[in-house]
Amino acid sequence: MTEEKTVIIVAGGNGKRVGGDTPKQFQLICGMPVLMHTLERFYNFDDNIRILLVLAASQIQTWKDLCLEYFFTIPHEIIPGGEERFHSVQQGLARCSNEGLIGIHDGVRPLVSIETIRRCYEEAEIQGSAVPFIPITESVRICENGQSQPINRQAVRIIQTPQVFRADLIQKAYLQDYQPEFTDDSTVVEKAGIPIHLCEGNADNLKITRAIDLEIAGLLLNNIEQNQ
Amino acid sequence: MTEEKTVIIVAGGNGKRVGGDTPKQFQLICGMPVLMHTLERFYNFDDNIRILLVLAASQIQTWKDLCLEYFFTIPHEIIPGGEERFHSVQQGLARCSNEGLIGIHDGVRPLVSIETIRRCYEEAEIQGSAVPFIPITESVRICENGQSQPINRQAVRIIQTPQVFRADLIQKAYLQDYQPEFTDDSTVVEKAGIPIHLCEGNADNLKITRAIDLEIAGLLLNNIEQNQ
Repeated sequence: MTEEKTVIIVAGGNGKRVGGDTPKQFQLICGMPVLMHTLERFYNFDDNIRILLVLAASQIQTWKDLCLEYFFTIPHEIIPGGEERFHSVQQGLARCSNEGLIGIHDGVRPLVSIETIRRCYEEAEIQGSAVPFIPITESVRICENGQSQPINRQAVRIIQTPQVFRADLIQKAYLQDYQPEFTDDSTVVEKAGIPIHLCEGNADNLKITRAIDLEIAGLLLNNIEQNQ
Repeated sequence: MTEEKTVIIVAGGNGKRVGGDTPKQFQLICGMPVLMHTLERFYNFDDNIRILLVLAASQIQTWKDLCLEYFFTIPHEIIPGGEERFHSVQQGLARCSNEGLIGIHDGVRPLVSIETIRRCYEEAEIQGSAVPFIPITESVRICENGQSQPINRQAVRIIQTPQVFRADLIQKAYLQDYQPEFTDDSTVVEKAGIPIHLCEGNADNLKITRAIDLEIAGLLLNNIEQNQ
């Protein structure tokens, strides 16, 4: 891979979904804030990758203090977030050109594997986009108009991040106005008429939302380290 | 609730999906085999419930030995399983009448809450069936003919157990021949022309499939006990 690589790590926007206490991305897993694990994954994948970290303006100083406290030296640029995740991504894209590959990753996914990151960048270079998924292990039904019906679970794809795109494609897609149906970057890109390529993710790539997820993430992290 | 209640706990069939070592349902969570936690949940819900435990014939002695070793005294009947999960459920149903309510539960779901169990039996008494679900917190796509498209995650229902039915309905449904599309009991019942009623499940009701799930289950169990 010779293309220039960037990752926009989205961590909190204006923080309104985070709730009272310390935001999840600043809480500790194995003694280090979640977000530091996340940045470390991308740095370990490629120490030349450009890391743009989008944070709520109100949390930037907290983050800077944490970086000092934890001697965190991985190079990254800090960008204040917007109203919705969509606007935070736009803030990140405003700092990027139309060249190279741009990944967008949830800050609260510290367990993405280096293999998943590599696969996404490599396949996006060829396909224009790469969106990681995992299969679902449980039965699934779809509910419409008060009725539910089973769907073939083999056809279901749970979508994760990083979602990686050729810079010109993602820049074009984010020229659109915000719509509530934009739940992730792939729906934004698709709405702009650009087809999406899916690739294999890793099951451990948990999105930390509940307090217990921090403990589960700690278990998974120890488990990964034992198997390396 | 005055109706007679039965639960068929399906744990392993002929064990062919279990793999080499100790089957997951016999491994320990917080110092006790998974399956004992599962039976305890139903007993704690109602100590008059009839518990039918379907085990691979080859594993019945192991289970009996474990019950002695762990001083496990919750009353239950042991039934040898069949080829597929479908046939194991049939074996259980053969011991039941057409009266009362019958629940069917995965042996490897030891974290079902008593509230979920109660809700399923109560709603099945009124609706004829009750199948617990949880919402999904991640983006979802459906893949067909090599193309994928997003679906509204609000419409997605992840299906769990216990699935509870009026005895006459589930007995009728299981007179059908086995079909590979029968991934759970609700699909069997629906194929017999009987509509399915969904009700709220609990997010912790993990299905233990991977080794790490045992550790996650331990965390969740400790967390539940702390909050009680």
